[in-house]
Amino acid sequence: MRDVAIIGVGLTKFGELWDKSFRQLTAEAGSKAIFDAGIEGKEIDAMYVGSMSSGRFVGQEHVGALVADASGFSHLHIPSTRVEGASASGGLAVREGYLSIASGLNDIVVVGGIEKMNDVGGNAAIETLVTAADQEWEAFFGATFPGIYAMIATKHMHDYGTTKEQLAQVAVKNHANGALNPYAQYQREIKIEHVLNATTVAYPLGLLDCSPLTDGAASIVLCAADKAKEYSNKPVKIIASGQASDTLSLHGRRDICTLDSTVNAAKKAYKQANLSPKDIDLAEVHDCYTIAEICAIEDLGFIEKGQGGKAIENKITTLDGSLPVNTSGGLKSKGHPIGATGVAQIVEIALQLRKEADKRQVKDAKIGLAQNVGGSGATCCVHIMEAM
Amino acid sequence: MRDVAIIGVGLTKFGELWDKSFRQLTAEAGSKAIFDAGIEGKEIDAMYVGSMSSGRFVGQEHVGALVADASGFSHLHIPSTRVEGASASGGLAVREGYLSIASGLNDIVVVGGIEKMNDVGGNAAIETLVTAADQEWEAFFGATFPGIYAMIATKHMHDYGTTKEQLAQVAVKNHANGALNPYAQYQREIKIEHVLNATTVAYPLGLLDCSPLTDGAASIVLCAADKAKEYSNKPVKIIASGQASDTLSLHGRRDICTLDSTVNAAKKAYKQANLSPKDIDLAEVHDCYTIAEICAIEDLGFIEKGQGGKAIENKITTLDGSLPVNTSGGLKSKGHPIGATGVAQIVEIALQLRKEADKRQVKDAKIGLAQNVGGSGATCCVHIMEAM
Repeated sequence: MRDVAIIGVGLTKFGELWDKSFRQLTAEAGSKAIFDAGIEGKEIDAMYVGSMSSGRFVGQEHVGALVADASGFSHLHIPSTRVEGASASGGLAVREGYLSIASGLNDIVVVGGIEKMNDVGGNAAIETLVTAADQEWEAFFGATFPGIYAMIATKHMHDYGTTKEQLAQVAVKNHANGALNPYAQYQREIKIEHVLNATTVAYPLGLLDCSPLTDGAASIVLCAADKAKEYSNKPVKIIASGQASDTLSLHGRRDICTLDSTVNAAKKAYKQANLSPKDIDLAEVHDCYTIAEICAIEDLGFIEKGQGGKAIENKITTLDGSLPVNTSGGLKSKGHPIGATGVAQIVEIALQLRKEADKRQVKDAKIGLAQNVGGSGATCCVHIMEAM
Repeated sequence: MRDVAIIGVGLTKFGELWDKSFRQLTAEAGSKAIFDAGIEGKEIDAMYVGSMSSGRFVGQEHVGALVADASGFSHLHIPSTRVEGASASGGLAVREGYLSIASGLNDIVVVGGIEKMNDVGGNAAIETLVTAADQEWEAFFGATFPGIYAMIATKHMHDYGTTKEQLAQVAVKNHANGALNPYAQYQREIKIEHVLNATTVAYPLGLLDCSPLTDGAASIVLCAADKAKEYSNKPVKIIASGQASDTLSLHGRRDICTLDSTVNAAKKAYKQANLSPKDIDLAEVHDCYTIAEICAIEDLGFIEKGQGGKAIENKITTLDGSLPVNTSGGLKSKGHPIGATGVAQIVEIALQLRKEADKRQVKDAKIGLAQNVGGSGATCCVHIMEAM
């Protein structure tokens, strides 16, 4: 397989973007990434788009072709493909773009991720989000994701003594980081009391334990690594891409506190990169709920199983800790436009490795990891990146 | 890039399958393909699933993970990714599976395509299908696909003198082929009067010019070509995969009678295979409407532009013609379960090249082509296959 590097990144502001349409958001993120890479449209060999449920959110499937068209490339007839894996859609789109270059077929590929979640009425957002769960075994019986992750949290509290305060500290840390990120939906710090006193959504998860509904898009430009320096003086190499699946519904797992898709995707990624968890300098993980970040740092091998809560309490994952996690603010504070999230995580790692993360820059960051999860863990995608 | 071969194929019956669920259909097609290939679950490196709008049709996104789970492979944590490009979803899924082997990452990949379209109420099917068109420029104003393809047909009639009778002959031919296919939704011949006298849907297209709503699934097993003979004594090599895009809405095209996505995808495929249109022995093309087959045989270079109607009239594309087209019965008679169609086309070509097409076997078939279109042509995927 050929090596692949990131030569351009682009983000829209994340948030409630009532005045921007789905196609405007994709074109904005894409054109920023293309401008950052300094490429022309005719140099693009293919495009990949991650979107979870554009069909339900905005009544538009076929968004691979839409994105190529909205970007002004219809006359170039660029192959453009949508990839979906619930909230892992963005990570999977990056992986398909990566493989298409690794195969030798393409040299330059633009990958985008997009979701517009706020332009829907009534219960449509929650009804759409639960299509990522198992319809026959979960959604039909009324389960929604806050409840599903609440079950993971209560089991984690029961088995390992994890506390509501430790969960809350994930949100506090991520808001502190998000306050430093001009693209984040919530650019303000919160205190632990805010999280503990927030309305309960599904015990033990309160409103501030949950990531929000977000509109936004993210984009990266990938290039065959041996040509990357023709375009960028600070390319970032993707040194591993791991993916794995698990049961769609939570009840079938051997242990609901462990996402075996993460464990397996990470195992493949570490093997490909010839690295171990201790070699990672920073990580973006899928904190759709605060408990998810605790499970993630355990399942990725950074922290012993069950000790995630204590690691948060001990500030290991803060911006100046030994392993900064979610420097972007994470899904919690930066926002979670489902299909865009996996791409935006990789944008953050690339900015950090390019030393362009401004006030949230991690010192001496050389190797970063992004973990993107679909549903309650039926899909996981792990990428590891290194400054070239 | 490594060469890739098909070592197994599987289909469910196509039709109105009220007694089979989405996951039952995927598992049935997948297990037939796996059994045909003689592989074990633990040998599968990855899975790809084409589905256009499972989220709207059956309330279930995240169907990559669902298919791996429903196939009984959750304990193997196989990477499984859904790919979408409207009615080209199946073809694009095959292409991603192909690239993942060509890259050197995977040796054996199962690709499935699935749609369950009949379990929806009211206007939900037509409202979902039109999400493949341009929502802002077409669907909002009431355009649906019969109307969009009717505009293509009237322009073709105006520019080239194509007749309603020639359109009808496409349907007659495809029903004659479908009558020989035990998996087809409509296994009966029709006469030209039936087509001409059928209720008008959108002039000049009548009910029998249109493909139906269909439930069904299709699956193939792909393998690195150098290992294919360990599994199959009649592997079929994929010698080219081409893909291209175009404007999402019809009005932006340079000529609405020409699908430039087909022209460009075919050009790439012929170049990769080092072949020209005259080297093709048979083809499955995307006859969602009768006019679409006429455009397809022109845009693929088989017939001069504008002469497609006459070619049909002259029986060039019948089972015993010089270039048999849609030997399976095509979308018109075999049925069109959107996400399954692109995979099912490749199943038919593989069966023909394996000499297993029974009563519809094309003599001396050595090289076959499959053309899969999304929407009104914003996406097209062309694969060329050869018996090994």
